[in-house]
Amino acid sequence: MNKLRIGIIGAGRIGRVHATSIVNHVPRATVAAISDVDLEPVRSFAAGLGIEKVTADYHEILNDPEIDAVLICSPTNTHATLSIEAAKAGKHVFCEKPIDLSVPRIREVIAAVDTAGIKMQVGFNRRFDHNFARIRELVQNGSLGEVHLLRITSRDPGPPPISYVKVSGGMFMDMTIHDFDMAVFQVGSPVVEVFASAAVLVDPAIGEAGDVDTAVLVLKFANGAIGVIDNSRKAAYGYDQRLEVFGSKGAATAQNDTETTVQVSTAESVTMDKPLYFFLERYMASFSEEMRQFVDAVLDDGPTPVTVRDALVPVLLALAAKKSVALNRPVTLAEIEAEV
Amino acid sequence: MNKLRIGIIGAGRIGRVHATSIVNHVPRATVAAISDVDLEPVRSFAAGLGIEKVTADYHEILNDPEIDAVLICSPTNTHATLSIEAAKAGKHVFCEKPIDLSVPRIREVIAAVDTAGIKMQVGFNRRFDHNFARIRELVQNGSLGEVHLLRITSRDPGPPPISYVKVSGGMFMDMTIHDFDMAVFQVGSPVVEVFASAAVLVDPAIGEAGDVDTAVLVLKFANGAIGVIDNSRKAAYGYDQRLEVFGSKGAATAQNDTETTVQVSTAESVTMDKPLYFFLERYMASFSEEMRQFVDAVLDDGPTPVTVRDALVPVLLALAAKKSVALNRPVTLAEIEAEV
Amino acid sequence: MNKLRIGIIGAGRIGRVHATSIVNHVPRATVAAISDVDLEPVRSFAAGLGIEKVTADYHEILNDPEIDAVLICSPTNTHATLSIEAAKAGKHVFCEKPIDLSVPRIREVIAAVDTAGIKMQVGFNRRFDHNFARIRELVQNGSLGEVHLLRITSRDPGPPPISYVKVSGGMFMDMTIHDFDMAVFQVGSPVVEVFASAAVLVDPAIGEAGDVDTAVLVLKFANGAIGVIDNSRKAAYGYDQRLEVFGSKGAATAQNDTETTVQVSTAESVTMDKPLYFFLERYMASFSEEMRQFVDAVLDDGPTPVTVRDALVPVLLALAAKKSVALNRPVTLAEIEAEV
Amino acid sequence: MNKLRIGIIGAGRIGRVHATSIVNHVPRATVAAISDVDLEPVRSFAAGLGIEKVTADYHEILNDPEIDAVLICSPTNTHATLSIEAAKAGKHVFCEKPIDLSVPRIREVIAAVDTAGIKMQVGFNRRFDHNFARIRELVQNGSLGEVHLLRITSRDPGPPPISYVKVSGGMFMDMTIHDFDMAVFQVGSPVVEVFASAAVLVDPAIGEAGDVDTAVLVLKFANGAIGVIDNSRKAAYGYDQRLEVFGSKGAATAQNDTETTVQVSTAESVTMDKPLYFFLERYMASFSEEMRQFVDAVLDDGPTPVTVRDALVPVLLALAAKKSVALNRPVTLAEIEAEV
Repeated sequence: MNKLRIGIIGAGRIGRVHATSIVNHVPRATVAAISDVDLEPVRSFAAGLGIEKVTADYHEILNDPEIDAVLICSPTNTHATLSIEAAKAGKHVFCEKPIDLSVPRIREVIAAVDTAGIKMQVGFNRRFDHNFARIRELVQNGSLGEVHLLRITSRDPGPPPISYVKVSGGMFMDMTIHDFDMAVFQVGSPVVEVFASAAVLVDPAIGEAGDVDTAVLVLKFANGAIGVIDNSRKAAYGYDQRLEVFGSKGAATAQNDTETTVQVSTAESVTMDKPLYFFLERYMASFSEEMRQFVDAVLDDGPTPVTVRDALVPVLLALAAKKSVALNRPVTLAEIEAEV
Repeated sequence: MNKLRIGIIGAGRIGRVHATSIVNHVPRATVAAISDVDLEPVRSFAAGLGIEKVTADYHEILNDPEIDAVLICSPTNTHATLSIEAAKAGKHVFCEKPIDLSVPRIREVIAAVDTAGIKMQVGFNRRFDHNFARIRELVQNGSLGEVHLLRITSRDPGPPPISYVKVSGGMFMDMTIHDFDMAVFQVGSPVVEVFASAAVLVDPAIGEAGDVDTAVLVLKFANGAIGVIDNSRKAAYGYDQRLEVFGSKGAATAQNDTETTVQVSTAESVTMDKPLYFFLERYMASFSEEMRQFVDAVLDDGPTPVTVRDALVPVLLALAAKKSVALNRPVTLAEIEAEV
Repeated sequence: MNKLRIGIIGAGRIGRVHATSIVNHVPRATVAAISDVDLEPVRSFAAGLGIEKVTADYHEILNDPEIDAVLICSPTNTHATLSIEAAKAGKHVFCEKPIDLSVPRIREVIAAVDTAGIKMQVGFNRRFDHNFARIRELVQNGSLGEVHLLRITSRDPGPPPISYVKVSGGMFMDMTIHDFDMAVFQVGSPVVEVFASAAVLVDPAIGEAGDVDTAVLVLKFANGAIGVIDNSRKAAYGYDQRLEVFGSKGAATAQNDTETTVQVSTAESVTMDKPLYFFLERYMASFSEEMRQFVDAVLDDGPTPVTVRDALVPVLLALAAKKSVALNRPVTLAEIEAEV
Repeated sequence: MNKLRIGIIGAGRIGRVHATSIVNHVPRATVAAISDVDLEPVRSFAAGLGIEKVTADYHEILNDPEIDAVLICSPTNTHATLSIEAAKAGKHVFCEKPIDLSVPRIREVIAAVDTAGIKMQVGFNRRFDHNFARIRELVQNGSLGEVHLLRITSRDPGPPPISYVKVSGGMFMDMTIHDFDMAVFQVGSPVVEVFASAAVLVDPAIGEAGDVDTAVLVLKFANGAIGVIDNSRKAAYGYDQRLEVFGSKGAATAQNDTETTVQVSTAESVTMDKPLYFFLERYMASFSEEMRQFVDAVLDDGPTPVTVRDALVPVLLALAAKKSVALNRPVTLAEIEAEV
């Protein structure tokens, strides 16, 4: 196989990000086809990128013997079904996160992937962010010694619409899930217990929808380290994505990215850029990088950097967090695993 | 009263810091006398500062009608007794923190102060730190909106000797106590619940002494805000004292202070100064500032900025933290108050 | 014209940067053909980008009626000839800097462009750098008031080979030329006088080749502002590209870009990233941006953002700088213009 | 001699700074007396610091056999006369800068000091600034390799009154003189040539008074290094005092000092502190440090860190700068030395 031939299912925002990124930045792959139930608006997008095949029926992608791998970028509630179908069709799978909100359903995907013997990667793109990948490297090469503390600040520029909040699975499943994955990725040791303290401080409507908008979470890792995540659905100054790992030999801290390094000093103040606006701006390069590594894993027959098993963990942690808030006590992962 | 005449009880490290600071930076006060059980080494120190009276017996200070106020800088286990004696003697009192590790004992001090009608201030000097005072000002003037999250990082350059650990009352009572006070000071709302997750990661001997050396604490405030403190007894790079308040209108973040602003760029790296070494370096200016405000409060008959009641709160929080670790569950302040 | 059809002459490093950048980031243009005297290595490069036509003879590009515009990315000594030929062939021209080291020759290009009525843009890509463009915007919108001082630091990670130094036209013509353009771009007023102080401090071989490797240049602008450029052929820590504009209302300062924001604190030091390695890393996004603006200018029939007249100015300034060093006195532009 | 007994002549702003700083921060010295022609306001100041002797006649200080050293803090036009009288009286001398605007007069002081065999130090306090002293240390210990470039930015928050401008000796003699001293101090090699480009951009009244308010100066050092100073009489954002030394092994850069490290992020902007307001705020610690080193030099019979010969150099450089502006050409120090 010279180049990986990829079919993309779902041409919404993230599907388009991946298509563009493959065409422009992943030389070992081509986008052979793209499908979307709402076909018309996709045609000109696909033409602009030189993607030849466009279809409203994703089965055409799964049945195409020329296609090696599929990207599942359709709505969350279709992820598990499509992943299983794709695995059965013998396609390698890259699936956006989360695979599903239901743990048994994720386990079915794991089983299907194992049976089919295909490679699957899940879209926890932040692992590929330049800042966070650098810190992980410092942890791995021992520069920081043994990890003692982990701090993640993750705050959105604004809450999603209430209609979305209602179907999102809650802030922990929708937003914190990325931070859970980052925590495990950085520390390299499983989380054994979660304590979550949450509140509705941004918008009462979020509370009325049964969700929270502000939280602090404490994680205990199997290796003894302690982690803390703080979340808010609304930071007035924008998308706040910082990380610190503190170990026996030192600490590594990632600040926010900005568009420029320009400092403006006037009689009133000294000002700098606010953080990059939102996840598309901040994490754009990580989307290309995760795709490059997926393509390399398939072409070179190596392990994918974020497996479907990896993707189960943050879901379990989100369930633990939810239960912790409900019961106002720490919740062990063992407890959650026994339940689901 | 033109100048406040102060007697200092205890001429150890902190007593000398206050004496020097008053002589050099608090023009409205003079040090009239200093006492220490180990008199000899104090003589030359006192002479160097022009302090005329030196005594091994603190009663000479308490009985001196020319002395208006006393600074209690003797060992912790004498704080309560001396405060009560000083109050009875009609002296205004500045007492180093903590007043006592026992809540009933602190309540006796409160009663004595109330009965005597004197002014008392407790040495939570970090409230007077330039960075933290600036953030408090931003909270108070509404620049940050309603407070949603508070983050304190407080890590020491190295643990105290094990002999000290054994009598310290534990890390929460000895070290976190400053962070508890800072949390309440910044948010301006009482803490209603504490969850603490702690570990022994720095030195097993600390664990053998019955204490912890690494912790993350979650605080719930009456106004709904959530706070998080992370502590370590040993940061390889030195004294780490950072603070962030995040509110509905924005966030204010204080980084560590450094000795210089110099950046050195070589073929190997771009380096900057490490944080100021320890509390004497970092908080030196705050010792003068707390003393100036104490002197002003007495001379101008205003309230002291850190009352003896304020000093009770962090002790209750430390007890709650300790119990939270023991029971691995959040502990309410109400629960602790009912017990002590 | 829907899309601009571009032919690229010269498939060396910069030719490939532009080809890749157009294919990936300039949706309004396509690369129709690419030519290089050394044809073989270009074939696979072109195939990888989907460029259909590859030729060793650039006349095939100039004579192709389907091609609207050419990019001249061949060696400097061919820039003027090719620009004139392209203009005569009715093609719009984007030419790498410098057009030529000879002023009369540049004037011939200007005449050819004027006669042909085509659009021409010269590759002063740094004007399109995110940091510098931001500062220019602040100057233009009046945020900084009237410009008083301009400071440019421009230092390379290492000198070019001596063989290149000998044919480069000298450091002012080869390296400072970008800074001259930046100076005029930022201040928005012509330079009327140059004083240059130069030395050979990096490598004596550069001096033996008749060139300098370290310099400070002072520019006087027609509007009264004063500018200063400092250059070195070798900064141990890498590519140093900083800019400051200081005006009556304030200053804007651009620091170097780095790969990450990560700070690492250990017992030894607090370190940060060094600057991005060299011009390809630092200015990559600016190459796409200048191309986008060139394509827009042609398609929308607007002025190009860097005209061939703009490109004459830095050459005159380099000549003035050279003469200033030779005579050790300031040299006016009028003086140089009278000579050439 | 246990403690150096100092008499201060002149109790204006800087005299009071020194008096306070000696009393509070220089334990090896005492202020024995202070004199000022305007005696009344000095009495309470002196009393507050415990200075016993106050006089309107400085001869009382020079004639007092109990006084070991004098600080000359009177107006500039009295510096030379008082220095000579003090030397003749056998007192060690600390004199504020500049000693005089006239070179022959400075030479008379040098002669008097040499004849009397006393120690003299001149008040170039910036050498003792924490940031700049750190950089000098890096230069001296070879961390930066051989010095190639030096950059000084020195801008005041606002111009002095026109009445002062008229008698100041001009911006180079009054303001740049500090930067000249810093340049020589940092590079550790004499300046051999100066080129100055200056303008009146801040206030036309400064030009009408025969002075300039904005300048860029280029210095050539005997060791081949090149230096550049930029000056403005008015930076909207305050006192701007930055320094960079660039050498064969790397660069050291000092940014401005600020009151706090607090960053405030809101929907509008991310802001930080402006630089410390003016020289008293920025350089306060350096005044104590220069005094400590003066006292040490006298008590320990070592060389003073800034001799009266050192103080001649910046005056010569200021004269060279003035001449360079007048003639619009570089001026050698040899040329100036031959003239004065």
